[in-house]
Amino acid sequence: MIRFECDYSEGCIDKIQNALAETNLDQTVGYGMDPHCERARDIIRRLCGREDAEVQFLVGGTQANMTLIAAALRPHQGVLAAETGHVNVHESGAIEATGHKVLALPANNGKISAEQVGQALHAHFSDPHSEHMVQPGLVYLSEPTEVGTIYTADELRAISAACRRYGAYLYIDGARLGYAMAACPEITFPLLAEVADAFYIGGTKVGALFGEAMVILNPVLKKDFRYILKQRGGMLAKGRLLGIQFECLLEDDTYLRISRHAVSQAMRIRQAALNAGWFLYVDSPTNQQFFTIPDDQLAILSRRYTYDLWEHFEDGRTAVRFCASWATPAERVDELIRDIAQLSTHKEENI
Amino acid sequence: MIRFECDYSEGCIDKIQNALAETNLDQTVGYGMDPHCERARDIIRRLCGREDAEVQFLVGGTQANMTLIAAALRPHQGVLAAETGHVNVHESGAIEATGHKVLALPANNGKISAEQVGQALHAHFSDPHSEHMVQPGLVYLSEPTEVGTIYTADELRAISAACRRYGAYLYIDGARLGYAMAACPEITFPLLAEVADAFYIGGTKVGALFGEAMVILNPVLKKDFRYILKQRGGMLAKGRLLGIQFECLLEDDTYLRISRHAVSQAMRIRQAALNAGWFLYVDSPTNQQFFTIPDDQLAILSRRYTYDLWEHFEDGRTAVRFCASWATPAERVDELIRDIAQLSTHKEENI
Amino acid sequence: MIRFECDYSEGCIDKIQNALAETNLDQTVGYGMDPHCERARDIIRRLCGREDAEVQFLVGGTQANMTLIAAALRPHQGVLAAETGHVNVHESGAIEATGHKVLALPANNGKISAEQVGQALHAHFSDPHSEHMVQPGLVYLSEPTEVGTIYTADELRAISAACRRYGAYLYIDGARLGYAMAACPEITFPLLAEVADAFYIGGTKVGALFGEAMVILNPVLKKDFRYILKQRGGMLAKGRLLGIQFECLLEDDTYLRISRHAVSQAMRIRQAALNAGWFLYVDSPTNQQFFTIPDDQLAILSRRYTYDLWEHFEDGRTAVRFCASWATPAERVDELIRDIAQLSTHKEENI
Amino acid sequence: MIRFECDYSEGCIDKIQNALAETNLDQTVGYGMDPHCERARDIIRRLCGREDAEVQFLVGGTQANMTLIAAALRPHQGVLAAETGHVNVHESGAIEATGHKVLALPANNGKISAEQVGQALHAHFSDPHSEHMVQPGLVYLSEPTEVGTIYTADELRAISAACRRYGAYLYIDGARLGYAMAACPEITFPLLAEVADAFYIGGTKVGALFGEAMVILNPVLKKDFRYILKQRGGMLAKGRLLGIQFECLLEDDTYLRISRHAVSQAMRIRQAALNAGWFLYVDSPTNQQFFTIPDDQLAILSRRYTYDLWEHFEDGRTAVRFCASWATPAERVDELIRDIAQLSTHKEENI
Repeated sequence: MIRFECDYSEGCIDKIQNALAETNLDQTVGYGMDPHCERARDIIRRLCGREDAEVQFLVGGTQANMTLIAAALRPHQGVLAAETGHVNVHESGAIEATGHKVLALPANNGKISAEQVGQALHAHFSDPHSEHMVQPGLVYLSEPTEVGTIYTADELRAISAACRRYGAYLYIDGARLGYAMAACPEITFPLLAEVADAFYIGGTKVGALFGEAMVILNPVLKKDFRYILKQRGGMLAKGRLLGIQFECLLEDDTYLRISRHAVSQAMRIRQAALNAGWFLYVDSPTNQQFFTIPDDQLAILSRRYTYDLWEHFEDGRTAVRFCASWATPAERVDELIRDIAQLSTHKEENI
Repeated sequence: MIRFECDYSEGCIDKIQNALAETNLDQTVGYGMDPHCERARDIIRRLCGREDAEVQFLVGGTQANMTLIAAALRPHQGVLAAETGHVNVHESGAIEATGHKVLALPANNGKISAEQVGQALHAHFSDPHSEHMVQPGLVYLSEPTEVGTIYTADELRAISAACRRYGAYLYIDGARLGYAMAACPEITFPLLAEVADAFYIGGTKVGALFGEAMVILNPVLKKDFRYILKQRGGMLAKGRLLGIQFECLLEDDTYLRISRHAVSQAMRIRQAALNAGWFLYVDSPTNQQFFTIPDDQLAILSRRYTYDLWEHFEDGRTAVRFCASWATPAERVDELIRDIAQLSTHKEENI
Repeated sequence: MIRFECDYSEGCIDKIQNALAETNLDQTVGYGMDPHCERARDIIRRLCGREDAEVQFLVGGTQANMTLIAAALRPHQGVLAAETGHVNVHESGAIEATGHKVLALPANNGKISAEQVGQALHAHFSDPHSEHMVQPGLVYLSEPTEVGTIYTADELRAISAACRRYGAYLYIDGARLGYAMAACPEITFPLLAEVADAFYIGGTKVGALFGEAMVILNPVLKKDFRYILKQRGGMLAKGRLLGIQFECLLEDDTYLRISRHAVSQAMRIRQAALNAGWFLYVDSPTNQQFFTIPDDQLAILSRRYTYDLWEHFEDGRTAVRFCASWATPAERVDELIRDIAQLSTHKEENI
Repeated sequence: MIRFECDYSEGCIDKIQNALAETNLDQTVGYGMDPHCERARDIIRRLCGREDAEVQFLVGGTQANMTLIAAALRPHQGVLAAETGHVNVHESGAIEATGHKVLALPANNGKISAEQVGQALHAHFSDPHSEHMVQPGLVYLSEPTEVGTIYTADELRAISAACRRYGAYLYIDGARLGYAMAACPEITFPLLAEVADAFYIGGTKVGALFGEAMVILNPVLKKDFRYILKQRGGMLAKGRLLGIQFECLLEDDTYLRISRHAVSQAMRIRQAALNAGWFLYVDSPTNQQFFTIPDDQLAILSRRYTYDLWEHFEDGRTAVRFCASWATPAERVDELIRDIAQLSTHKEENI
């Protein structure tokens, strides 16, 4: 089987593999205080143009989200998020387990608008019974979103302004950040550092074995963050493993380069899908592609390829996700494109 | 500097490094459902002699402890532990953050006794006001303890019996389990599977880059454990990284062999310390050694070696910890031994 | 001002006032173990036809809900509830503060259907990725609902059956239970004891100064409930205050009688509203009445009466709630009816 | 039986009973925003000499403690308290259920010293590994303590200074505050307002049916406190019940007067005990008295009196608590004194 169901099927880029091997028996202090972590922090601060940024490394996305949110909110506060947001639907209640409600807003292609955010904040703070309700204390966005769409720079700035007007934090989940940057050049580290109180740079899905780099801009959120990192199980004993990986990804253009590869492969799959007459379930410019496919064609594809099931329709079609990643060889995409083309020309016997 | 301050200064054994490199671009499903994890699970079940054991992999020890305890206890229950237990003192309140009190018992060389456990359980369940107090629902032990001592098989069986008498779970933190097994042959996987409701096999401190294998014996604790694993941030996207590491450690005698190396190097350091006239702060048979050293001698050692400060005494001595590990080269220990010997013969100028 | 905005503007029925005065200097043991609480428990068990019911008394509804839910759920489980459910919108995140997500379902006149409940449970338990999502562990209903509507006996039985099919608990919030019983004779204590795993009989809004009687039918939920009652701040030191109140309410037909009074007054208000040409915002058979009223008429009413603002419409109308209660004098309703009638005949100068 | 086991066996002072009856059918707004609560707040602010104090009313002590602490601390912070402190031993883990560890300090007659507090804070903040441990964020004292002893004004000021030096809050549990004030005139409302960031004035044990008045001095703790009050189940629907009670207690010298009565009765019991040759288990100047009594004498007393068992000694003696309260009639104490005297003169047949 050739796997297109997600963007974390493989290990890591060779450069990381080599760096881990080379430094394997070096002795360093633990818990993220080693020279590799310090160097990775410096690189990230420079990339963001923010010498004052606090950078801490975590192992995975759910851990990153729950740790930042637990550190940011008081007990009566909750998280405004798209109903499709990862924190709302795919973290097994991790946010609620830290005591905070996720206040879901209707999503449009995975996104919420500054207007929605502003209205939700206004509605709460102008309600005479507000103290009987959860106070929105933080807005959670994913860039790109869970369905591959991108908030533009203007959209991010408008949401950020709405947050600041009401004293809510803006936190951006960058699990696939590289793929947004590759698809949309206006999405940059300085932009995120400008609009967000905190965001994380995703490694797990963009070239690393594992790891996310949390970048904290708001001084209030920096204070004692490492206590909470430890408390939530996120302080890796051999923290340098994270530092080394982010050094490799960010010391040169590696992060962007491998992201561009993924996006270009995804665009090839997308074109093949459009050629085959499939509908775009979501119109995504990034590495995740969502198509609505006739069930008989999907059955044939399933013999060689894995994908992620998204939604089944009564009319004999199914929405699915195909992901490309930094690790997707062009040759595999060639095969997929050929097989999709054959499907639509009814040459299915060759697959 | 030569580091003896902890047992997680280096990366991993070569075998793991190689296995990760070889499998790097293989595609597998995520979240610990891949063939490597399945094979590692089978190996662990076989080693424990328990086909019914549930095995799940986590990234680190604090995460393992808080996840198991959150999964095991109802809200009004707490954890009986030695006052020196990791969950009581070095997890930044991770257990309390899941809502549960740690009920600390006085420790004797890092250990609590079956008598203490039985008395604490009896005292609670026979108290007419018990519902105003935290109900002890789980006993937490570390094997070896945080100060390197070992619960014997008889001690474990007696504590287990006390727990079962009162319906409390017994959970064993095996962060350094290999070092207990290496030092004390009666400590075996089947023994732990017999006495405990759950325990974990430590990888981070015993040859792995990171990772702990949770072994759950009690059927009640197995139910829905993976939900809570996900919720607490412990479900690694590329779960196979954990499976591969435990395959490497446990498919043959690697785990025990590298642990024996650490213990034998620790015993050499211990002998050198005794020869030098230092006192044993704790009499530990495992890889962690605790000595009380005159401050002037310690100052000289500090020029070349790192160690962990434990306690300072007013009389001009300091208790410190030296750790050996699977990664400690005999040559480095030779140097340390030589330097300790010189200290005691006042040839300090040569260090 | 004459208050119709809620059903807790006054104190308690005279009978309770007198009983509290008479027993004031009696000495009893504390924490709900006194003879009054025991007697109230016996009465409730008898009314439910369930000798095995566990009955505990709490001070208020939010406290009752969060305590029962905290006692019932494991950490990865959540609460299925109508989006309009009290636990979802008006408890300041009390449920999430115990670690559990409220999984909101679209409501139809404040109600959810057995079909919705069954589908939500089925969708979760048949999803191959279920462990990444919150497991619905309990269904929360209010009887009557927050907008005064009533689940029929058949509806309750169908929801109960759906819950039992999937192993979820059914918990019923009876903050205004008397008013449902008064409006709909098939709603009885034995019915609730049959369908629910736990429910509470509301006192605060139905004749008591304060207090709710939690009735637990499912043996699993009974175990150690009092520990959690204490832990969540719900164990009243002078617990007999609660026992005395429920003795007074339930030892004879008082509870139903005062509820019938409230409902009949509400029906008189409703008729006046319909006569005035107002729309029913919700068609409620109980003590809460919701009308959509022209803003100019509402402005006139506001000079003498308080009500609860529910929703403002752009077209110059506002939805409001008028409540009757056990304490509402018929004379006050007479005045209100007269003033409503005058409004609609434009004789507003007399108000 | 005549009850001396606790100070909450009876209802409330007549004045409160009457005020509740008189206002019973008045209509007021709910949730503590009514004129009675406002008036009680004004009285308390005046008594404290602090116009800026925020005053909120809660139903009971455990609720008051957990709500204030949940509002005050960030997730990684804990509570320094005497090992005998109510939050540490008699709240069923209520504090831990809000996510915070209680860091217990050895107690001397129920008290901790400024030196202990200062050392604990210094030890944490000077530890290079502090982020692996719970940060003490709040110091909890009870005035009087759980064993009836009193912190002097100097002691309170010294502890307050230690807290402020390290940025920790000082919170004082005044469940029996009146009895400390009655026994020790230097304990006053202005003193508490000076030293504490928050404290509560206990009503349940000092003349009220129930209720505690939380007084918050530190502006940081005032912010959004009512959200958390609601979230933790502490916002009483008919909040005026609390306002009325505190008006009655505090609008004149009632609170102090009834407290003096209790203390003077306790002193009479104490003298009888000393006359009988009993040892003082704790030397308490307040309404709780602790004696060590020969078991045979205790057995005789048990025929007519209840007391609270504290500790049983192997030598045939038992430590017990006798409480007087605002409600203890002098005649009952007369009887007890007579019976104690008879015990010691072996006239036990008359009891």
